[in-house]
Amino acid sequence: MTTATLLLLTRPALPSSPAGDNGFVQVDADQPHVNVMDLGITRGDGFFETISVVHGHPQALEPHLARLQHSAALMDMPVPDLDVWRVAVLAGIETHQLDHGPKDELFAKLIMTRGVEGTGGPTGWVYVDAGEDFSAARRGIRVVTLDRGYRHDVAETSPWLLQGAKTLSYATNRASLREASRRGADDVIFVSSDGFALEGPTSNVIVRNGNRVRTPQTDQGILAGTTQASVFEFFAARGVETSYERIPAHELATADALWLVSSVRQAAPITNLDGLDFDVDAILTADLNTYLLSRTH
Amino acid sequence: MTTATLLLLTRPALPSSPAGDNGFVQVDADQPHVNVMDLGITRGDGFFETISVVHGHPQALEPHLARLQHSAALMDMPVPDLDVWRVAVLAGIETHQLDHGPKDELFAKLIMTRGVEGTGGPTGWVYVDAGEDFSAARRGIRVVTLDRGYRHDVAETSPWLLQGAKTLSYATNRASLREASRRGADDVIFVSSDGFALEGPTSNVIVRNGNRVRTPQTDQGILAGTTQASVFEFFAARGVETSYERIPAHELATADALWLVSSVRQAAPITNLDGLDFDVDAILTADLNTYLLSRTH
Repeated sequence: MTTATLLLLTRPALPSSPAGDNGFVQVDADQPHVNVMDLGITRGDGFFETISVVHGHPQALEPHLARLQHSAALMDMPVPDLDVWRVAVLAGIETHQLDHGPKDELFAKLIMTRGVEGTGGPTGWVYVDAGEDFSAARRGIRVVTLDRGYRHDVAETSPWLLQGAKTLSYATNRASLREASRRGADDVIFVSSDGFALEGPTSNVIVRNGNRVRTPQTDQGILAGTTQASVFEFFAARGVETSYERIPAHELATADALWLVSSVRQAAPITNLDGLDFDVDAILTADLNTYLLSRTH
Repeated sequence: MTTATLLLLTRPALPSSPAGDNGFVQVDADQPHVNVMDLGITRGDGFFETISVVHGHPQALEPHLARLQHSAALMDMPVPDLDVWRVAVLAGIETHQLDHGPKDELFAKLIMTRGVEGTGGPTGWVYVDAGEDFSAARRGIRVVTLDRGYRHDVAETSPWLLQGAKTLSYATNRASLREASRRGADDVIFVSSDGFALEGPTSNVIVRNGNRVRTPQTDQGILAGTTQASVFEFFAARGVETSYERIPAHELATADALWLVSSVRQAAPITNLDGLDFDVDAILTADLNTYLLSRTH
């Protein structure tokens, strides 16, 4: 039996007519709630966000909600009613805490699908639960680079490939993690077919060289990271120069330090990339994670 | 309310211990049966087959079942128990006919997912229902070519991209069909980033030049088509030479005739490709569809 809190949205998308209700209902997460003909499952046709919740505060809630609308637009889906989603996330957290007591870290998963084929309306829910223990990953991970198969400019030339949307069609991301595991690694940095470092399957790449911190620029089919934005704030406050750039994959080997950053897991320092060892600045990384975990907005 | 017949598999994958049961149970298709944390929906992590059922006969049943196992292998998933799936498909068809009377055409959709995160076992079901009316498409469709973003050899170089597996992560296929619609077309032929004609989002491409019929060879990340194999049988029996080749996309314009072929819709002749009109041999196409619809194996 799960300890999760599950809220099904009755009004996930606009136009939404508030009828005195909140636009969601709490249901039993142990029971099935998805129809077998929901396009979310038959076609991976929908999008999601995963939000880190620390001491009851959802982190970067507004950027995550904005990204829901961005994914919807890229996928020609109805516009999510952010007022409903926002209240549902907060209610899901509150209910989880009332039912299971306060937790240091939870996550909230928001999913919206194109709905059951032929019925018209989208399906949506918010799922809140305690996450895994990421303390080991926050001390260090081994990473391999893998070809993503696409050129760096494919989001621009071929928008139907949905690069930059956080879709439910994540099977290749999962397969890349299994390939990493076969190679003795924990995670992946994707490389474009023309040689640029891109992002991880569920993270952004941070590259430090001396007093300069970079991340691959997002016009390469990269999801703009909510955690990556906070990492840049952390470094900027310390006088470190930050920038978005096209980074040839071979330059990663010359970095002083590398991290994969994401919601929930936060900053994971890379100890080894494709067999090459990297030093981890344990104090800097601990400070960075303390900063990330202390975000209250 | 749907007229569909839905069978949930209790033993979708090997090792499977028959306990005197069939390995499936019939349930109400109007009720939800999928957990919100099933990896099929949270990650599009699973595979499917769609089988055409004509006058009660599932067409190309054994090739479809073999492809289930091929997809499972490409995705490092448990081996589907084909004995269970086979009996479930036949039982689903029989039940649908008993409940709703005989139909000329039905379809059976087989889905197997990696299951609910953390629980271990895969999820599987067979869904049988009457399909759409494809008579207009069988007279002619307008098609556009769209970049698939990958090189033709990516299945070989980068197996984690899962080209050749029939995964549930179909969001880009759906997006490509919306792009086709924006361009005034009905369907798509994907082209590799290095210029080879590949396949449709849910079909194979058949190219006729005089007494020669070709289809793109499947080592280009192309799903080996069960209907395409039958189309080759049809032409071979008429003394037409058939072959699997690498076909540069620009050669499509020089074809005497083009079809997109798939289960359920069968053979759809192309009347226009990227604005270029093609003649349709209506009698040949009708003969071809009569042949495809008469398959009893």
